[in-house]
Amino acid sequence: MNSHGAPTPPVVLCIGGFDPSSGAGITADLKTLAAENCYGIAAITALTVQNTQGVASIHPMDASVLRKTTENLLADGQVKAIKIGMLANRANAEAVGEILSAHSNIPAVLDPVIRATSGMRLLDEEGAAYLRENLLRRVRVITPNLDEAAALSGLKVENVEGMKAAAQKLVEIGAPAVVVTGGNLDKAIDVFHDGSGIETFVGDRIKPDNTHGTGCTYTSAIAAHLAHGRTLRESIVFAKAYVTEAIRKAYAVGPGRMPLNHLYRMQQNPRVSEHVPALPEPVH
Amino acid sequence: MNSHGAPTPPVVLCIGGFDPSSGAGITADLKTLAAENCYGIAAITALTVQNTQGVASIHPMDASVLRKTTENLLADGQVKAIKIGMLANRANAEAVGEILSAHSNIPAVLDPVIRATSGMRLLDEEGAAYLRENLLRRVRVITPNLDEAAALSGLKVENVEGMKAAAQKLVEIGAPAVVVTGGNLDKAIDVFHDGSGIETFVGDRIKPDNTHGTGCTYTSAIAAHLAHGRTLRESIVFAKAYVTEAIRKAYAVGPGRMPLNHLYRMQQNPRVSEHVPALPEPVH
Repeated sequence: MNSHGAPTPPVVLCIGGFDPSSGAGITADLKTLAAENCYGIAAITALTVQNTQGVASIHPMDASVLRKTTENLLADGQVKAIKIGMLANRANAEAVGEILSAHSNIPAVLDPVIRATSGMRLLDEEGAAYLRENLLRRVRVITPNLDEAAALSGLKVENVEGMKAAAQKLVEIGAPAVVVTGGNLDKAIDVFHDGSGIETFVGDRIKPDNTHGTGCTYTSAIAAHLAHGRTLRESIVFAKAYVTEAIRKAYAVGPGRMPLNHLYRMQQNPRVSEHVPALPEPVH
Repeated sequence: MNSHGAPTPPVVLCIGGFDPSSGAGITADLKTLAAENCYGIAAITALTVQNTQGVASIHPMDASVLRKTTENLLADGQVKAIKIGMLANRANAEAVGEILSAHSNIPAVLDPVIRATSGMRLLDEEGAAYLRENLLRRVRVITPNLDEAAALSGLKVENVEGMKAAAQKLVEIGAPAVVVTGGNLDKAIDVFHDGSGIETFVGDRIKPDNTHGTGCTYTSAIAAHLAHGRTLRESIVFAKAYVTEAIRKAYAVGPGRMPLNHLYRMQQNPRVSEHVPALPEPVH
């Protein structure tokens, strides 16, 4: 609580790409944070042109703008966690490395986005090398999917055994903890390596057409729960439950690969039409 | 309802600037649309660097990216309303003019953003001229504040009489309808000209520190209600009620001019901790 009478939620800073279709990237992050009772702020690394039918093009922003934006946001204080997604190129990745060094007291969660589902590169080769050699050791946890775990570990990752081997390898090369997300396996299995041992979480695979942005959402939800002061394991469990429910409550929107329903909890409330006060009196 | 079992909300396209502090611009639009039960998608005209303490700089995007983004989004179909905010420059304003011409069947709402509260220009002079001469006649309604009404009408606008005169002038130069928003007057009075006559709505002025993004929010909420098929007058009344409540439920976040609580309705739901299923069983 504060002088305003309403509780101030923890502030979480997102750094990533902008998806105009609102399924993934910064806007998915901000919706997820709102759903998990955080206030999200955000710095954009690249604009994408995309709709439900795929990514048409990528337009990286200047690293200087990313630096100014994050410095300016962090100057307001109050940031309790940082979520990192698509970085586009090495210059942006290095800017994020500097931010993490300067604010090592704030827990960060890194979704090591490298390619779109279509195969289009979302981080250049030099950026991926920097991510592997520098960024992954500066964060609390990384959340690769199967392809990203394979790219970063150099291993073949096609099943749970491969996920476990990749998680082990990524911890060995410096990641403090790893969640390999297997949302596109038959059983939506995630492998969690906490730095000392491995645990496996099994979920249901539901509505495979509504999975655009699942990785962004999962990672943001983990950041939200860390910002609330939960342990990493708790944060992952809460985040997986949230993502599962957001997929379950998803609706059809667009002809292609569709988004989650990030704000499904709001739909339980009275609709606007039940909520509005009497019409104001005209004053002449 | 659709094959997914959940109702698909109307899709609303927002075109405007990006505020990393999430108080105004595209992210305020998307939160507002979610709160008003729409699905928001968005094209960015400019990045801003800002926090609660003000706008530090503006970085316009290429009009070619804006064109590609909006064409791509509109190709997915389903857009039921368009909300237009900050345009930054003439090239972006012209791109929006083309979009409105090509999609004149979709109702559009224009917040004629010209300057930040600090005085910094958010639309260049040539852009403002294009907005006045072209854009304002292509939309369903425009929503200037006092300063914008003065800049567009050439009149002095400092009180309700001035607002009425400016609304009349703006209708004469081509706007089909006008809401002059007086949120910073003592009584939060809005003047609505529906093209044939003037009506005045009076609200309470509450929490003047939590008004960053009020104009974006109000305009987006009007677009949301038009997308639901409501009349313009109904949409304005619903939007004003929503904005008022989002200010009332706002919390302190940051040392400067703070945002509304766009998603206040969600806070009435059970929190995550009451909501999560039993922890998944580890599988070894």
